[in-house]
Amino acid sequence: MKIGVYGLGRFGSFWASTLANDFEVLVYSRSEQHSVPEGTRRVSLEELSTCSAIFLCSAISATEPVLKSLLPHIEAETQIIDTCSVKVYPTSLMKKLLPNNEILGTHPMFGPDSAKNGVEGLPIVVTPLRENSKSAVFWEKYFSSRKMKVYLMTPEEHDKEAAMTQGITHFIGRTLNELGLEQSQIATKGYNSLLEIIKQTCNDPWQLFLDLQKYNPYTEQMRESLHEVLHDMLTKLDHIDILTTKKD
Amino acid sequence: MKIGVYGLGRFGSFWASTLANDFEVLVYSRSEQHSVPEGTRRVSLEELSTCSAIFLCSAISATEPVLKSLLPHIEAETQIIDTCSVKVYPTSLMKKLLPNNEILGTHPMFGPDSAKNGVEGLPIVVTPLRENSKSAVFWEKYFSSRKMKVYLMTPEEHDKEAAMTQGITHFIGRTLNELGLEQSQIATKGYNSLLEIIKQTCNDPWQLFLDLQKYNPYTEQMRESLHEVLHDMLTKLDHIDILTTKKD
Repeated sequence: MKIGVYGLGRFGSFWASTLANDFEVLVYSRSEQHSVPEGTRRVSLEELSTCSAIFLCSAISATEPVLKSLLPHIEAETQIIDTCSVKVYPTSLMKKLLPNNEILGTHPMFGPDSAKNGVEGLPIVVTPLRENSKSAVFWEKYFSSRKMKVYLMTPEEHDKEAAMTQGITHFIGRTLNELGLEQSQIATKGYNSLLEIIKQTCNDPWQLFLDLQKYNPYTEQMRESLHEVLHDMLTKLDHIDILTTKKD
Repeated sequence: MKIGVYGLGRFGSFWASTLANDFEVLVYSRSEQHSVPEGTRRVSLEELSTCSAIFLCSAISATEPVLKSLLPHIEAETQIIDTCSVKVYPTSLMKKLLPNNEILGTHPMFGPDSAKNGVEGLPIVVTPLRENSKSAVFWEKYFSSRKMKVYLMTPEEHDKEAAMTQGITHFIGRTLNELGLEQSQIATKGYNSLLEIIKQTCNDPWQLFLDLQKYNPYTEQMRESLHEVLHDMLTKLDHIDILTTKKD
C-alpha cells in the first residue's frame, strides 16, 4: 500500500518517517529546500496522486490551495486525510471540494519533540466525515496497532477542546517567549517546566501558532478569558497594601 | 547541636523533617493545628530559643512580628536564619532588629513537591549578611554535604533573579488557575506540563503567592512586562486577517 505525504515541514517529515515504518511512503513538497526523510521517496504531484491515501501535512492556512492542486490528479477512491491542528476549517473544505472522495480528518496530538521516544501512548484524534467511512476504520485500526490512543470526535468537539489545551499552551509559550526568559542556576522545577513549554512551542513554526489562533473558532474566546483573568489578578494585587513600606 | 524551626506550615514541616535527618530538631508553631513532623519535638517559644540556630519558616509577611516575639528570649550567639522566598525584605529586618546576632538569609528553591524524591541536586541560595559570618560557612558546608547546590548571592541579586523565575512561574500558575483548566484525553505534552505548573504553584499557600508578588521589589516590573507582551500579542493577532471568513 502506497501512502503519500504532502508537505515536508517539521511535522510532515516526522509523519512521513513514522509511516515509513509500515508503508511505502512517497513524499511531495513544493519547496526543494526540505530534505527527504529516511525510508521515503520524493515524487512529483502526479505520482503522489497515485497513492491509496494522501496525508496533508501542509500549513492549515494552505489547505485550500493544496486541495485544489490535488483535484485534477486524484481518483475518487483516493483517501485524502488532513493532519491539521484544527479540524472544523480543513474538514469543511474537504467536504466541499471533495464531495465524492474518501476524506478523513486526523490530528496527531504530538510532533517530533513530544514523540522523540516514539508514538506509543500518545493521543491522536480521528474525525470521520462520511457515513461508513472505510478510511476511518482502516486508520483507527492502524493507529491503535502502533499503540497510539485514538479518540473519535467531531471537528467541533475537537476544536473546542484543543483551544483550551493545545491552543492555550502555544499562546502562553509564544507570549512568554517575548519576555526573553533565561535559564537560571536558581531555577525552581516549575520555572524549568515553563522554559520547556516555551522552547517546545517555539520550536514549531510561527505559521502553526498563527493558524492555531486564527483558524480554530474557539481560540478567540480562550484568549479573551485569559486576558480577563490576568487583568483581574493584576487589579487584585494592586489593591493589596504593600506592607513593606509600612514604617514602625 | 539543637536546631529550631519556627513555623509548621507546608514548608516548615518539610524543612524540619529534612533537618531531622542530621540534627535534633525542636519545632514551634503559634497554631496548634499543625501536626508535629516525624523525628522532631514540639516546644515552647522559650525552649525553642535555647537552640544554637533557629530557622524561620513563617510567612514572609509575618517576619517582623516573629522576630519581635523571639527577641526577648534569644542570646546574642543564637543564629537566626530565615528561609523566605524573597530576601531583601526579611534580611533588612533581621539586620535592623538583631544588630548583634549571627543572622543569615537562605532560600531553598524547592519545597515538599519538588523535593519529594530528596534534596540532592536542588538549588539553595545563601545570603551572608555580616562579615566573616560563621553561620554562612557552617550552613554552606552542611547544605553541600547533603548534595544541595549552594549559590551565594546578595539579597538584591536573589530577588532580581527570583522575580523572573519563581515569581513569574507562580504568577502564571495562579492566573491560569482562575480559568479552571481541566485534564484532557487529547492533551499535548506541553499542556500537561502547564497543568502541572498550575497544580504545583496552587499547592503552596495563597499567602506565599501574595508575599512573592508584594515583598519582592522586582516582581511588579515582571508583571508589567508580562501584561505588555500579552497586550502586544493580542493586538498582533487582532490585526491578522481571519482567512477563514474569506469566501471564494
